[in-house]
Amino acid sequence: MEWKTGITRVEPNRIEIRGYPVGDLIRNLTFGQAVFLLLRGEAPTQAQGRMMDAILVSTIDHSVTAPSACASRFVASGGTPIQGAVAAGLLAIGSHHGGAIEEAQKMFMDGVEKARAKNISLSTVANEILETHKSRKLRLPGFGHPYHKKDPRVTALFQLADELKFKEDHSKLAQEIEGNSDAVFGRHLQMNADAVMAAIVADMGFDWRMARGFFLISRCAGLVAHSYEEYTREKPFRAVDLKDVKYDGPDSRKLKS
Amino acid sequence: MEWKTGITRVEPNRIEIRGYPVGDLIRNLTFGQAVFLLLRGEAPTQAQGRMMDAILVSTIDHSVTAPSACASRFVASGGTPIQGAVAAGLLAIGSHHGGAIEEAQKMFMDGVEKARAKNISLSTVANEILETHKSRKLRLPGFGHPYHKKDPRVTALFQLADELKFKEDHSKLAQEIEGNSDAVFGRHLQMNADAVMAAIVADMGFDWRMARGFFLISRCAGLVAHSYEEYTREKPFRAVDLKDVKYDGPDSRKLKS
Amino acid sequence: MEWKTGITRVEPNRIEIRGYPVGDLIRNLTFGQAVFLLLRGEAPTQAQGRMMDAILVSTIDHSVTAPSACASRFVASGGTPIQGAVAAGLLAIGSHHGGAIEEAQKMFMDGVEKARAKNISLSTVANEILETHKSRKLRLPGFGHPYHKKDPRVTALFQLADELKFKEDHSKLAQEIEGNSDAVFGRHLQMNADAVMAAIVADMGFDWRMARGFFLISRCAGLVAHSYEEYTREKPFRAVDLKDVKYDGPDSRKLKS
Amino acid sequence: MEWKTGITRVEPNRIEIRGYPVGDLIRNLTFGQAVFLLLRGEAPTQAQGRMMDAILVSTIDHSVTAPSACASRFVASGGTPIQGAVAAGLLAIGSHHGGAIEEAQKMFMDGVEKARAKNISLSTVANEILETHKSRKLRLPGFGHPYHKKDPRVTALFQLADELKFKEDHSKLAQEIEGNSDAVFGRHLQMNADAVMAAIVADMGFDWRMARGFFLISRCAGLVAHSYEEYTREKPFRAVDLKDVKYDGPDSRKLKS
Repeated sequence: MEWKTGITRVEPNRIEIRGYPVGDLIRNLTFGQAVFLLLRGEAPTQAQGRMMDAILVSTIDHSVTAPSACASRFVASGGTPIQGAVAAGLLAIGSHHGGAIEEAQKMFMDGVEKARAKNISLSTVANEILETHKSRKLRLPGFGHPYHKKDPRVTALFQLADELKFKEDHSKLAQEIEGNSDAVFGRHLQMNADAVMAAIVADMGFDWRMARGFFLISRCAGLVAHSYEEYTREKPFRAVDLKDVKYDGPDSRKLKS
Repeated sequence: MEWKTGITRVEPNRIEIRGYPVGDLIRNLTFGQAVFLLLRGEAPTQAQGRMMDAILVSTIDHSVTAPSACASRFVASGGTPIQGAVAAGLLAIGSHHGGAIEEAQKMFMDGVEKARAKNISLSTVANEILETHKSRKLRLPGFGHPYHKKDPRVTALFQLADELKFKEDHSKLAQEIEGNSDAVFGRHLQMNADAVMAAIVADMGFDWRMARGFFLISRCAGLVAHSYEEYTREKPFRAVDLKDVKYDGPDSRKLKS
Repeated sequence: MEWKTGITRVEPNRIEIRGYPVGDLIRNLTFGQAVFLLLRGEAPTQAQGRMMDAILVSTIDHSVTAPSACASRFVASGGTPIQGAVAAGLLAIGSHHGGAIEEAQKMFMDGVEKARAKNISLSTVANEILETHKSRKLRLPGFGHPYHKKDPRVTALFQLADELKFKEDHSKLAQEIEGNSDAVFGRHLQMNADAVMAAIVADMGFDWRMARGFFLISRCAGLVAHSYEEYTREKPFRAVDLKDVKYDGPDSRKLKS
Repeated sequence: MEWKTGITRVEPNRIEIRGYPVGDLIRNLTFGQAVFLLLRGEAPTQAQGRMMDAILVSTIDHSVTAPSACASRFVASGGTPIQGAVAAGLLAIGSHHGGAIEEAQKMFMDGVEKARAKNISLSTVANEILETHKSRKLRLPGFGHPYHKKDPRVTALFQLADELKFKEDHSKLAQEIEGNSDAVFGRHLQMNADAVMAAIVADMGFDWRMARGFFLISRCAGLVAHSYEEYTREKPFRAVDLKDVKYDGPDSRKLKS
């Protein structure tokens, strides 16, 4: 089997990430800067590194109100080591939880490409996206949140992206979609953390197929915290109480022989 | 890298499990019989195959009162495909949930070996085990259950093992431990499904390092059922309601610059 | 949080799967029969139970020539307990490995529905499917295999399905696709185990969204066998040898300060 | 079910990590600083934050010569989304791969405690540890590496720890063990990245039960990179070639009826 890779060169007593000696990275980079280098292949500018750290910090945890934290805690509670508990939590990062970054980024990139190809405004594209999703009764990836009308992560990330000059067409399209949503969709669709991350990493030039990766790396830390808390503060075998389960299947019966 | 294996021979147009053509197995074996062959290396007798099917049936599901089912459902709810949801559930099969089969089987095997080596009765060994666990304040693996005083799986499995002539020293030791528990431990420790599976597979001659495997194969089916039910009957993003979370960490504060 | 389920009723000293007492199932059912009951909601006929056992036996293992077995062995080799190793293997059951059952079943069901709705022959539908996939350069899910031109599992499963009277339109469509492939697609596309399982479970009346589940349950056993073999026969830390890795990334360089 | 947590407070339009508003963290912290806050409960000093970033950078990737990267790539190759591929890789972080940080940290902490309690030198404790492991033929967790005699991560991390004044007794004990190994163990046991991380996080005051967490967070990034590379540069279904598999199981045989 051929194992080809362009990420890391390992030789005896030598480890280079994208060509840079690991010792130099340890001494000089923040983790966000190193993630940028690892995933992009090139060392970040100060602004790129700062933005990446901010992105990773933004979704580091969201308490047990996220399916991922609950999955981790149930697994920890079963008596499995922490790598298993954290892995279970990451598995929950699918299209309805964090994974929407991917769908949102693709939507923004397709939209921006369309605006450029057809020479139409981002606002027009935003309306088309809203109308398509409305008529097909589809969820708009990255918009809406069960708890937050005004997600503090959206505000902070966009403000920083603005200061660091990263806000380009993808971020603008995201804001156009939010801005036009009342008129077109009939209700206000506020961006959530998925959408703002998607817009910014698109503006930074990342591939949408990597989008979920930022959330995975970030939330991995939160899942370590939840697993540790479960092991150290809770009794084993977290279980739903019988009285909280509503069984609505077939009534008692006998096998026919 | 060397890939050595004694399980399955694969050649063009030919698949043999432990030497037997897969076509013959498809036509002639139940899944329990095939599992016996796969894990033991030899085709089962009728009694061995029957017992294996019964073992696999016994723990096929236990509703959402098991951490594994909850983990699967949270992951399914995050929008990840079924292999991820089922994997997350299996991850919860640790020392406190199903995985206790391993610890229980090892305990029974060590106990039986000790009884033979020292020529003492199983009852004496049972008392020693109970006393050791009591004095060290350790949980006795495979004994006790949050809901069942008399687990219907224990009754059915032991009855069948008896009919099929599989009950030997490991099962007897398990029963001695249960029987002596009131006197030695101060409260009745009834066997749960983990202990009875552990005792029977030990009596059937399986290695304790394989013990969790039977539970994993069996419960995998239940986790498929729960994942499917979550996808088809529930809304995406199963989340703990804010009012059910009690935050007891540090109060609001500001970063010092 | 509401935990609603129609699968298993758990009450103190009572466990019922789809309404049947677990003790009755332990005494009377093979694992295949119990899986049918669990996933379908109703007890199987003899023929349905026999077919289900055969399906589960058919994909029980395929050696380390499957990505899933390799994933399990690497994880076992890292020193993680067996539930983690098995879970990692199951995670590999995606669209290109086992998971194709889902896509194949959906394709067969859509095809049969179309034939009925438009009152056209299955052969005509088969040609349309072949032409669509050819013109879009798409892989045909469930057809082709890296090693087997004539997969022994396909022969044995279809023969049994024939004897048990399960071969209906979905199986016929699968065979029409294979039969017409040379003429339409330009090369022979033989059915693999995914396609035959997909066709039969469709003919048995299962939902395509459950299709991957059969493979997951079946292969779970193989992954237990591989994990166990890795723990007991191999040294820890299975690693690719440095000489087998071809690094083709950026050459050594220095960070600019 | 009670969901108690001291990690993150979530309320409508408000997210606080350990009491700090997430917006402040996004604007002011590197990811390493945020991880320190999340896992320790208190905001780091500049030195603590710097050290944490360095620790997380140090094990960010080690190419496909690590079981975790191989597990991720096999799962990606099966056609499962990236959260599944990354989770599979994390599952390999067990006692023989990264997970040794936990065992090493515990060993260092027990050793330092013993030195203090008995008022003996760290060098004496180091000798005792070496002798115990030698006589019991146990692997010394965190020492030895398949490729590196002089691991560049060890050098860089210890140098930084020294500059930042974090090197205390646990680091010293680690160095005593390495230094005395030739004399006591009969061969030189050089520290690997696991040991140096274990020693430093112990000196920083972290609980050994959290030790694997640092490696999980760090390597999560590497696994994202490998999964992405597999999806975008390799063909689906990575499989071991038949000629590289050595089957050594039972020869072909027939089922007896």
